[in-house]
Amino acid sequence: MQPQPKPLSTAPYKGVRDFYPKDWARMSAIFSHIAKTVKTFGYEEYAASPLERAELYESKTSQEIVRDQTYTFIDRGERKVTLRPEMTPTLARMVAGKRRELVFPLRWFSIPNVFRYERPQRGRLREHYQLNVDFVGSVSTDDSDREILFLAATILSSFGATEKDFVIRINDRSLLKAACTHADMPEEKQKEYLRLLDKKDRIPEKEFISARKAITGTDPLTILETGIYADIVEIKKRLQGHKEWLSKCGVPNVEIDPTITRGFDYYTGMIFEVFDTSSENTRSLFGGGRYDGLVALFGGEPIGAVGFGMGDVGLADFLETHNLMPQSQSAPTLFLGTAPNTSIEEVEKFAHVLRKNNVNVFVNLSHKSLGDQVHEADKRGIPYFVAIGADEIRTQTLKAKRLIDGVEKTAHVNEIHSFFEQS
Amino acid sequence: MQPQPKPLSTAPYKGVRDFYPKDWARMSAIFSHIAKTVKTFGYEEYAASPLERAELYESKTSQEIVRDQTYTFIDRGERKVTLRPEMTPTLARMVAGKRRELVFPLRWFSIPNVFRYERPQRGRLREHYQLNVDFVGSVSTDDSDREILFLAATILSSFGATEKDFVIRINDRSLLKAACTHADMPEEKQKEYLRLLDKKDRIPEKEFISARKAITGTDPLTILETGIYADIVEIKKRLQGHKEWLSKCGVPNVEIDPTITRGFDYYTGMIFEVFDTSSENTRSLFGGGRYDGLVALFGGEPIGAVGFGMGDVGLADFLETHNLMPQSQSAPTLFLGTAPNTSIEEVEKFAHVLRKNNVNVFVNLSHKSLGDQVHEADKRGIPYFVAIGADEIRTQTLKAKRLIDGVEKTAHVNEIHSFFEQS
Repeated sequence: MQPQPKPLSTAPYKGVRDFYPKDWARMSAIFSHIAKTVKTFGYEEYAASPLERAELYESKTSQEIVRDQTYTFIDRGERKVTLRPEMTPTLARMVAGKRRELVFPLRWFSIPNVFRYERPQRGRLREHYQLNVDFVGSVSTDDSDREILFLAATILSSFGATEKDFVIRINDRSLLKAACTHADMPEEKQKEYLRLLDKKDRIPEKEFISARKAITGTDPLTILETGIYADIVEIKKRLQGHKEWLSKCGVPNVEIDPTITRGFDYYTGMIFEVFDTSSENTRSLFGGGRYDGLVALFGGEPIGAVGFGMGDVGLADFLETHNLMPQSQSAPTLFLGTAPNTSIEEVEKFAHVLRKNNVNVFVNLSHKSLGDQVHEADKRGIPYFVAIGADEIRTQTLKAKRLIDGVEKTAHVNEIHSFFEQS
Repeated sequence: MQPQPKPLSTAPYKGVRDFYPKDWARMSAIFSHIAKTVKTFGYEEYAASPLERAELYESKTSQEIVRDQTYTFIDRGERKVTLRPEMTPTLARMVAGKRRELVFPLRWFSIPNVFRYERPQRGRLREHYQLNVDFVGSVSTDDSDREILFLAATILSSFGATEKDFVIRINDRSLLKAACTHADMPEEKQKEYLRLLDKKDRIPEKEFISARKAITGTDPLTILETGIYADIVEIKKRLQGHKEWLSKCGVPNVEIDPTITRGFDYYTGMIFEVFDTSSENTRSLFGGGRYDGLVALFGGEPIGAVGFGMGDVGLADFLETHNLMPQSQSAPTLFLGTAPNTSIEEVEKFAHVLRKNNVNVFVNLSHKSLGDQVHEADKRGIPYFVAIGADEIRTQTLKAKRLIDGVEKTAHVNEIHSFFEQS
């Protein structure tokens, strides 16, 4: 090996995370908890590559995101490639690709990593994991919208969150659209207006009020308050119906909020955002909505769809704020210590039996004393210890010790596993 | 929604795969089977982003791979970024980054997706998943080499493979190095020679023989056969020791093969490749080896390490060839059918109880007849069916039917879950 002129840096690429075993155990505990809950609603997991053809995002993802915030590059075959900034376009592509074979409606979920080129000074991550849950197919719009809202709430409550910990604010894109139309707002002004509403919670209230005042003509939000337009009344009634239905299903923490807009251009109907009620964390936790036009971008008749995306960072913040983080352990269950001069072949025979009984075994290969091995097990967070020496090999009987309280159990190697609570 | 001038293509990016729920269930079944086995050996799971600084691969990954086969691009901050082509450099970086905090030895594993820019005409994938298992830290080299070999064999046997299904060919980089030295082969010729050995199984035998004949001076392989050099005898004895140890542990299918080289430049000691013995699939299934210099590239003292990487495609081929693919099911367990005019709120109350009992429930939201709903359940691969109507709501008693054989069970909603074999 030649000496290196300068050591390589151990830092990960800017804005992404390394997951050491403890960190990954924590993430996995959250993910598997979520996957379990979502599966009880009949949802099936799918996946795809983070590499997508860039054109997928050029028509319907928010233009700001595509232009300024994606990783897009040209491959050696002159193809324009994007690291997916979100999963919904991939889902729509996959659904469209097998629309003749799939049995609709689809209840699908995925937990992909997604990439955003955030400017470094904002200190935000360039890669995060995001649960995506989608109901795709033409059944009653109300029923599927409600199921998605109910599932979103159930995920949080499955971690132990109560109705006091979060609030779901619902709205409908068609409500805003109708209000803009009745206010005679020109098409080109409407996007700008939605953007103003979208950042409402991120700017000072004063700034929001003065921006509303600057609108030439009638402010669409004022129109929504009047209740004189039949189409607006109709949509509000539907939202009210969702609210009542959810309340009957044990989710009373729902509010109708006509300022909710969601960033993406592809939403067509109900949209929602979930907020943490804790004063420490007022940002939107996650959200979603109905996007009935996306699948048809790939040809064929439109297929209705509704879903949401939940990022890992916001969720972990929420769980920590409310002390709801699930328990996790990365360490194995049992440290198999070795007395001096014990042959590893013999130790492996014990390990083999224990593994067959689903015990996660860490075999000592060092020449430390047994006392030091116990100390090491403790340092690693391994809860149980067994020492193997000449007696154990002769009798095939093991004495296992629980390190936290010193409780011991002696049993034949075939029986000892019942003592270990599996992690 | 404006009509699109031309529909978007539904094809994924070239060389990557979409995983529809059935495909992903198959992958997940393989992965979770492997993870379970690897954990019983005390290994802990870690993870990292696929985005890495390009310099990580420039010193030690095979030069051919870096130059011709990586996705490398410049980000907006002028940073050179690579989509990881393999996991080992990331592992070495993470280990070096926390070498003062971590408790050695480390037993770590990960199942990352890795990226290779393969030329399209070769028809190979540009992204695949690869189990990475590594033992990092300075204990007896023999013991850790053997554990890694044993674990590699155990993964295959845990799927039901027998010693007749695969063979492990082991070698040592220092053996080849010593042979080259004794043959007086110049340094610059040695890499070329290793490359010739590496492709031995992919080129016609004739071609390999004539390439060996073309070597000026002594052919190092001839030196290995003589047994007159003490260093060579020593290394061979060690490999023989591995073989005997593994045989005692129930793995007799090990061969010493001095032509095994492995592609990467960073290997320093024992190396191995696992081959399918089926004539249908003669390519190397997977392999690995010892790389004692990699962690020290990031500064500090060298830390010994040995491990292997196992790609999903080769493994799935192997499992299919030998009829060992684990069972998988993506569909939910129970189709909750609805009689005409049943309110979804009432159905959700039943669904709620079932979900609490870990039943994966697919609630019908269509207006199909019950007969058509049974047909739909069958088409979806959902094994159980329950219909909810006025009687069920009144009595809170459900009649569940197993569709494959028509066996029925009637029980209170709180009890019915015991009938469903969970998938």
